[in-house]
Amino acid sequence: MNEINVLAPASVSNVVCGFDCLGFSLERPFDQITLRRIPERTVRIINRDGFGLPTDPEKNVAGLALEAILRASDADFGFELQSTKHIRPGSGIGSSAASACGAAVAANCLLGDRYSPLEVADFALAGEMHASGSRHADNIAPCIFGGFTLVRSTDPLDIVRLDFPPLFVTVIHPQIEIKTAVARAMLPKEVPLKSAIRNWANLGSLVAALSKGDYNLLARSLEDEIVEPVRGPLIPCFDEIKRVSLAAGALGGGISGSGPSVFMLSETRETAEAVEIAMQNLFSSTVIEFNTYVSTVNPNGVIVV
Amino acid sequence: MNEINVLAPASVSNVVCGFDCLGFSLERPFDQITLRRIPERTVRIINRDGFGLPTDPEKNVAGLALEAILRASDADFGFELQSTKHIRPGSGIGSSAASACGAAVAANCLLGDRYSPLEVADFALAGEMHASGSRHADNIAPCIFGGFTLVRSTDPLDIVRLDFPPLFVTVIHPQIEIKTAVARAMLPKEVPLKSAIRNWANLGSLVAALSKGDYNLLARSLEDEIVEPVRGPLIPCFDEIKRVSLAAGALGGGISGSGPSVFMLSETRETAEAVEIAMQNLFSSTVIEFNTYVSTVNPNGVIVV
Repeated sequence: MNEINVLAPASVSNVVCGFDCLGFSLERPFDQITLRRIPERTVRIINRDGFGLPTDPEKNVAGLALEAILRASDADFGFELQSTKHIRPGSGIGSSAASACGAAVAANCLLGDRYSPLEVADFALAGEMHASGSRHADNIAPCIFGGFTLVRSTDPLDIVRLDFPPLFVTVIHPQIEIKTAVARAMLPKEVPLKSAIRNWANLGSLVAALSKGDYNLLARSLEDEIVEPVRGPLIPCFDEIKRVSLAAGALGGGISGSGPSVFMLSETRETAEAVEIAMQNLFSSTVIEFNTYVSTVNPNGVIVV
Repeated sequence: MNEINVLAPASVSNVVCGFDCLGFSLERPFDQITLRRIPERTVRIINRDGFGLPTDPEKNVAGLALEAILRASDADFGFELQSTKHIRPGSGIGSSAASACGAAVAANCLLGDRYSPLEVADFALAGEMHASGSRHADNIAPCIFGGFTLVRSTDPLDIVRLDFPPLFVTVIHPQIEIKTAVARAMLPKEVPLKSAIRNWANLGSLVAALSKGDYNLLARSLEDEIVEPVRGPLIPCFDEIKRVSLAAGALGGGISGSGPSVFMLSETRETAEAVEIAMQNLFSSTVIEFNTYVSTVNPNGVIVV
């Protein structure tokens, strides 16, 4: 095989009480990636979109993932990657993870599926580290494995696929910029033990609710008193987004990644669409540009077309 | 019905990364409780064991639970409780919770099952609060509901029953005294966010492992870097207990409640018995008196005989 096309989906990380470990894959938006063998043992990047991402592979998350897999394998060829991104960089729904995972999955296909999904995730992580500045796999994991994933450990990488019931997601992306590094610097170094206990009790309950398909328990478990109070104020109308979404029937939700996107989970597509309308109505009265998406929680990660 | 007999099992709380929320019920040891209607609207306590627990209902966890249920109900009668405890007070395997839950379940039977299990747990909590000084339901929950339980919230009480695969437990009770209040005072008020994240990732994984019956993941998730480093040194030979138990095949374990008992989980009864022998060999070389128990994780809580 000399060429392959993959679709790499957006994903939500830092799922409320699952800060830094829980994520899930979206059905849309997604990036389109074409990877081609080239005779030289090198990596070449061509961007087919208007986002102006770097084409130097050393400065490009997909390029770094490809270099990692090239270094590890004894391939006597290289890769040319053409990328058409639909996930806006900086939106907080796993844009860089999609680039890194799409590239790593495609490269693994061209290498005859030599590596396990966990190994592929590790190559993608090499690229993602460039974007986030540290080893965070909570967008990588759902983008590779699909569905809901829990990163139990980053080093060594230990990823748990969770069972989950049908769920629909509404995402609003207010088009302001929040630097991941800034959002990370705001985090407290220490947290009250009491808050930490409430958080892990909620995360345990959330995992149980997903596995049982208990939507009421899921809604009760979507609580975060550690990160949301610190980062929520960075996002325009954050409290109002939550309020109108819950009023429209959402189970709950919070900041996607380090923002500025906000996601809400719903039991049905109809509710998720009602939540989208409520979000649109709210932001239409502001001067802030925004996008909204309605999606399933996608059981698939990157797919080969 | 004028009289009822119940068996109230021991339980393990503070299950490694599930500090203050995760517990499970044991099959043995258990307390035997007989509750009888008496004409006067009062509570009378008779101890049929040698532990010398108070018979003043205001100072007795079972008495306080009975008074709570009596206050809430419009019963025109009272209760006489006869208790034969086999769970040693202060052993760290839910002795006071067994007394409170046994009394509350028995009283509810004599009241014609008027209250839901969650309400019964709330009455038992009124008694347990006397023993622990605060609202901690992580022994109450498994003692009422059986199996593995997660206390998502204490106020209002929100208890989640978890799915779990067959598991066997080895408990060693070194007969030293650790006051719950002292063990609690040792806890840090604040914890590093990084440690808290590792802990909730482990608890999420532990819940997933229980629901999937994934023993390997269960073993990997049984990690605690928050409470165990502080309280472990209170328990004689704690590190050695862990070491010999893991060498004998245990999946993992830790301090039961606030100690001094230590529990280990195993996949089979044979392994749990091998773990018991390893613990016995270890303590036989010390001057410390000890008991050991091998038990299933018991799907039942208090049972009516």
